[in-house]
Amino acid sequence: MNTLQLKNLKCWLEIPEKSDFPVYNLPYGIGYFEDGSHSAVSRIGDYIINLSLLFQSGLLRADGLVLKHFASEFLNDFIDLPREVHQSVRRRLIELLTDKHAGLYDLDKEIKDNIIVSHHRVQLHLPIKPGDYTDFYSSKEHAANVGTMFRGPENALMPNWLHMPIAYHGRASSIVVSDTHLHRPWGQILPPGADNPIFSPSKQLDFELEMAFVTRRGKPLGQPIKVDEAEEYIFGMVIFNDWSARDIQKWEYQPLGPFLGKNFGSTISPWIVTLDALEPFRCEGPQPEKELLPYLKSSGEKTFDIQLEVDIIPSDCQPTTVCRSNFKYLYWNMSQQLAHHTVNGCNIQAGDIMASGTISGTAADSFGSMLELSWKGTKPIKLSDGTERIFLLDGDTVIMRAFCQKNDLYLGFGQCKSTILPAINY
Amino acid sequence: MNTLQLKNLKCWLEIPEKSDFPVYNLPYGIGYFEDGSHSAVSRIGDYIINLSLLFQSGLLRADGLVLKHFASEFLNDFIDLPREVHQSVRRRLIELLTDKHAGLYDLDKEIKDNIIVSHHRVQLHLPIKPGDYTDFYSSKEHAANVGTMFRGPENALMPNWLHMPIAYHGRASSIVVSDTHLHRPWGQILPPGADNPIFSPSKQLDFELEMAFVTRRGKPLGQPIKVDEAEEYIFGMVIFNDWSARDIQKWEYQPLGPFLGKNFGSTISPWIVTLDALEPFRCEGPQPEKELLPYLKSSGEKTFDIQLEVDIIPSDCQPTTVCRSNFKYLYWNMSQQLAHHTVNGCNIQAGDIMASGTISGTAADSFGSMLELSWKGTKPIKLSDGTERIFLLDGDTVIMRAFCQKNDLYLGFGQCKSTILPAINY
Repeated sequence: MNTLQLKNLKCWLEIPEKSDFPVYNLPYGIGYFEDGSHSAVSRIGDYIINLSLLFQSGLLRADGLVLKHFASEFLNDFIDLPREVHQSVRRRLIELLTDKHAGLYDLDKEIKDNIIVSHHRVQLHLPIKPGDYTDFYSSKEHAANVGTMFRGPENALMPNWLHMPIAYHGRASSIVVSDTHLHRPWGQILPPGADNPIFSPSKQLDFELEMAFVTRRGKPLGQPIKVDEAEEYIFGMVIFNDWSARDIQKWEYQPLGPFLGKNFGSTISPWIVTLDALEPFRCEGPQPEKELLPYLKSSGEKTFDIQLEVDIIPSDCQPTTVCRSNFKYLYWNMSQQLAHHTVNGCNIQAGDIMASGTISGTAADSFGSMLELSWKGTKPIKLSDGTERIFLLDGDTVIMRAFCQKNDLYLGFGQCKSTILPAINY
Repeated sequence: MNTLQLKNLKCWLEIPEKSDFPVYNLPYGIGYFEDGSHSAVSRIGDYIINLSLLFQSGLLRADGLVLKHFASEFLNDFIDLPREVHQSVRRRLIELLTDKHAGLYDLDKEIKDNIIVSHHRVQLHLPIKPGDYTDFYSSKEHAANVGTMFRGPENALMPNWLHMPIAYHGRASSIVVSDTHLHRPWGQILPPGADNPIFSPSKQLDFELEMAFVTRRGKPLGQPIKVDEAEEYIFGMVIFNDWSARDIQKWEYQPLGPFLGKNFGSTISPWIVTLDALEPFRCEGPQPEKELLPYLKSSGEKTFDIQLEVDIIPSDCQPTTVCRSNFKYLYWNMSQQLAHHTVNGCNIQAGDIMASGTISGTAADSFGSMLELSWKGTKPIKLSDGTERIFLLDGDTVIMRAFCQKNDLYLGFGQCKSTILPAINY
């Protein structure tokens, strides 16, 4: 459907103006209901749609789709269905929500009230069980900021950076859903000038503003995914907060990269927004500054215009928006990331997570981490309650938002939110 | 049971002398049978035991144990059972295989012949679906060898190395079982002196001799596992070949560590040998050379005397043993690795894999990689067919073996074997 067709879609449910969840969004999540049951869910305005019950009503059918795809604890099995099934489910959901004669509007009230539920009555859980999680490092501005701080402006980018989307493997088990709070991590820290490390809670706890994509099943081990077919293997996207303990990371990361400075937790937003829903917001990314090897050459509108914001909320205070960035700033797009990741034959599975790396822009208020916003502590960030931050304090809540706006179309990802709890007693 | 008791255990099945699989080993794997069915299996001498059928016969029961624990595609659910259940299953298996009156010996022949099957008639698959895979770097000799080659003998070890078991996250999806062959990977390589990388199959393909442990479920996110309780969270061990494309790794790894140089495949042996079976082979590891932070202090016999060997077999030729090493050489033991991994609250799940890192000793023929054995190409390795190797050639097969010997006790892990296939046509 084109922009006009999408704009003219009218849901028979009341949708608040500028809701993140218009009828052309229809993201997927996992919801737990008041009776203790769980199901794959979608969202429309302020309502949750119980997809298991909708399937059982007989109104939502597609080739190969069976109840377990919606009734499982995670969406992995649903994501593992062919792309055509997902497209068919999306078309049918739009039909059911816009056409009063399609069956849902006229359904028996008792059944219908169980299928369409106020979002206040549903708890959202982690939507997928990620098999593997990879974190890219695809923002040139972020890589250059960090490089400048630690190696000076002449060596801001490593020699390999403009030739390939640099990445490392992260920890999948500690990925949690929005509203899961995290304790400040303990770890080894080398105090300035010291010869030996101390054991301490991190004193440099940071967020990293990222987006992540969730993969479909890829090819068998040994078979690369080409850059031009890569989007066929992307199911959808979430907001991703790659929490980082800078002091732990700094001492441990040579020579094998980040480990305990990162794997104490990463937070994702509960809704997976599909690439189909993001289609109207396609755009071009930055032009490559160096000639790329053929397997990474990508042309056309291969990225998306997704506006990003980060708020910090000290305990019981008002939020301060500390960062405004955009997914389209990324130097390497998702197709290039996936082509690179699999070029050596590495396989991907349904429900893997590939995060973008911190998304910074050129403006000083578009930097996607406190390390950059406070420029390594030299420019404290002022919050609306009058306090300042270099890194996060216990009790601080970080909220990330992502949304797309184009002509009269608007959709959002909801939010990715988590509060820093004090370190445990060790 | 003590050594004498174990030695006196007499299985009523004929066990070849010096079999890897005496009655006190009883490792776990996943077997596929000639009728297409699969099951959790154990091994005794040259026989496979079908644990699903044994369970169904009523002879193997334990609290909480149900058929799905053996009938699943992977051992993860079985591993997720309490340690007491595993101990109870082990005791009962030993009883069934040594006591002719315990029920198995006298079972109806047709049923018994389906439970106890020649190993030639069973195909072994990947025993677990690893949630996460972590690779440590715990051999001081290996770290020092690599450091000396690339940074000189004065800077052989990074300053952090003696303070913590350095590690990075690896790719879980590309872990394959022994006898799965791997294509030589393509990737970006920077030729010596060049400014720009080329795209080529790796020319520096290497093995890394490692062992790995398989975890039980750990504590909830945020709760560390202490060094003294760590072994309670270890189910068993496998041989691990961490294939490495040195040229790809060298160009990509700064600043975030190994990625495509490693994730095209890692091979594990099919049998998980439990820590209970390894008990007689406990020993002390090296003494720490620096005072450790309290959370890493470990005393007593916290490692195992496991002899390791690597053979290279060129196509259609005889094997040459190129390396003889030992698991006990590792500077950091598994308890320290697990305590470190979770000290920041990182959670672990049943079936995660934690590999040791390349296991090198001090002797030149105990180095666990070709990079070290050939000392960066300066000392080619002579094979018994008269050819030489610096790195692996297409058609080369690498076999790793691990076994324990103490007084009259002997057990082995079987082998971890894979052949390098030519790069695919890209």
